[in-house]
Amino acid sequence: MTTEIRDRLDRTQKATREAGIDALLVSPGADLRYITGYEALPLERLTCLMLPAEGDPVLVVPALEKPAALASPVGALDIDVVAWGETDDPYALTASLLPTGTSTVGVDNHMWAEKVLALAAAVPKARQVLAGQVLRELRMRKTSAEVSALRAAGATIDAVHDSMKEWLRPGRSERDVGRDIADAIIAAGHARVDFVIVASGPNGASPHHDLSDRVIAAGDPVVVDIGGTMPTGYCSDSTRTYAAGNEPPQAFRDYYAVLLEAQQAQCSYARPGVSAESVDAVGRDIITAAGYGDAFVHRTGHGIGLETHEEPYIVAGNPLRLEEGMAFSIEPGIYLPGRHGARIEDIVVVTPEAVERLNRTSRELAMLDG
Amino acid sequence: MTTEIRDRLDRTQKATREAGIDALLVSPGADLRYITGYEALPLERLTCLMLPAEGDPVLVVPALEKPAALASPVGALDIDVVAWGETDDPYALTASLLPTGTSTVGVDNHMWAEKVLALAAAVPKARQVLAGQVLRELRMRKTSAEVSALRAAGATIDAVHDSMKEWLRPGRSERDVGRDIADAIIAAGHARVDFVIVASGPNGASPHHDLSDRVIAAGDPVVVDIGGTMPTGYCSDSTRTYAAGNEPPQAFRDYYAVLLEAQQAQCSYARPGVSAESVDAVGRDIITAAGYGDAFVHRTGHGIGLETHEEPYIVAGNPLRLEEGMAFSIEPGIYLPGRHGARIEDIVVVTPEAVERLNRTSRELAMLDG
Repeated sequence: MTTEIRDRLDRTQKATREAGIDALLVSPGADLRYITGYEALPLERLTCLMLPAEGDPVLVVPALEKPAALASPVGALDIDVVAWGETDDPYALTASLLPTGTSTVGVDNHMWAEKVLALAAAVPKARQVLAGQVLRELRMRKTSAEVSALRAAGATIDAVHDSMKEWLRPGRSERDVGRDIADAIIAAGHARVDFVIVASGPNGASPHHDLSDRVIAAGDPVVVDIGGTMPTGYCSDSTRTYAAGNEPPQAFRDYYAVLLEAQQAQCSYARPGVSAESVDAVGRDIITAAGYGDAFVHRTGHGIGLETHEEPYIVAGNPLRLEEGMAFSIEPGIYLPGRHGARIEDIVVVTPEAVERLNRTSRELAMLDG
Repeated sequence: MTTEIRDRLDRTQKATREAGIDALLVSPGADLRYITGYEALPLERLTCLMLPAEGDPVLVVPALEKPAALASPVGALDIDVVAWGETDDPYALTASLLPTGTSTVGVDNHMWAEKVLALAAAVPKARQVLAGQVLRELRMRKTSAEVSALRAAGATIDAVHDSMKEWLRPGRSERDVGRDIADAIIAAGHARVDFVIVASGPNGASPHHDLSDRVIAAGDPVVVDIGGTMPTGYCSDSTRTYAAGNEPPQAFRDYYAVLLEAQQAQCSYARPGVSAESVDAVGRDIITAAGYGDAFVHRTGHGIGLETHEEPYIVAGNPLRLEEGMAFSIEPGIYLPGRHGARIEDIVVVTPEAVERLNRTSRELAMLDG
């Protein structure tokens, strides 16, 4: 892994230079983990990688985090680690490490406002831009090692969906089912549970419904959207819609069939060279033609890697051409407020000629008799 | 709870006015939950409360989050909810909602850089300051309802420490012990595990050591620092240092006694009117006098509430006078690199005349024979 990370560091530095940015400033989060392998705690004390366009990077860390930083891949990467004490000013320290004459710095997209503003004050002559303009180009094209990690994540969340009938049945509350699923996400091999949506009956019409105390009734459609982070740092995310107990309403079955057709069409269509927005349109056209266009209230998907949501976004207005190695969700949904909803989501990765689905559990409507 | 939240909203608006800020812009996180009760997902799509110094607040949300926003306390608060579609520009929308002539906006301290910079571009004439200058003053003075929530969190994490002997024993790896503790944190009543540090032997010298595969040996000192978030949103955080199996080294016992004395002295000293930095000094003086000053590498503590780390910080250089209702950790530590370390941490809340400890498990060195 150190070789892969060293290569990422080199490519990031080269891209920073080409973008005309004098240095990147990267605080804890997926960008830092991508570049250095260091999974730093997101805390109020400043931890910040200063990666100059030319020359050696420096990692600024609070003194008490230094042992943890050195125990991470940073320790094997020849990155200079500079520690600051509790009464030092870490922003002045970071500013002092920037290349002479720095006029543009790239701050990581998720850096907290308090750090962004403090760095702006410490380096008043530098214009701040987003490091994302550099890092998105690298992070959205997965290496084979990253694809392997995402494939393992997909298989791991699939194992949870495969056992759904153990937990999801009429008479149980969404919260109780959700707790069991969260346990299973860990037991299956994830390091962390990222989200558990169990949206039954009318709650299924809220795409990001949280768990509630609603008791699942026989015949309820139930949207189950779950994901976690693997020990590698790579994320899983898969949605299936189930029918609990008896037969679901005919109106639901009608649009579920439309949704399944749309999702299948999108997965068949996506390949190198087609645009992100056209993948969205292929599914949206089918759903709209069937009369449910207004009920598909969100984009088709999001990239996935070290974060559950990252570039590329599969959405109208995004002309990005797909390339081999891009990984994203294809997850159309249909939502009828006050009634019910459905969503089918697979993570796919672009291959030389098509996409490979990383989630493989059945997409047919599953009746769980409990 | 709605009454408490409405009161917070009113007090935040008043403080915003008094600070000369035209409007706060608050994205998902503890600030938004504090002001509105809405536990929004921290995603790339913009969710943002626009709270003007005068007039009615507006919550900008992605269309697909609108049902979840209305299902939160926001629905009962008369806050106007404005939804945007996947191809709209939410930053232009937010800018259009600001009061006429806005010259200063306060962005929440944890807002992502990509949102900070996009809002700066959408409102080029407004100076950005941190909303924290307003919100810290409110959030660090807990109401009685908040103190009750923190007291419940303290009792819940105490129940986990009380059962430590079930999991922590020689021959088990830190990772295995940590997994059991994480399960117990949820089983005890937390909604989420925030962190589990099990730092055995030499790992105890890294204050923020992560879990490792190191197998705990008989006689190892083991620092266990654990916390989670309760369903109320309030956090727990407590550290105890254990001796696994046989007697720990005499050198360790010597400084553990010093540490215990220092932590006790700090808890006895803290009260309304004394400064945050003086609480730090009281413990540091004892540890320094015993010859371990260089080994106490971090501040004494951090505030706690809807976040594990928030104001007030108990650190040299912070002259803040303590007031009734402030809640924070008192957690001195002594760390000997390559050998071992110790930390004792209680959450305390300032009462009219002293502090109340919210963690009550024994602070004496506990020998766990396994």
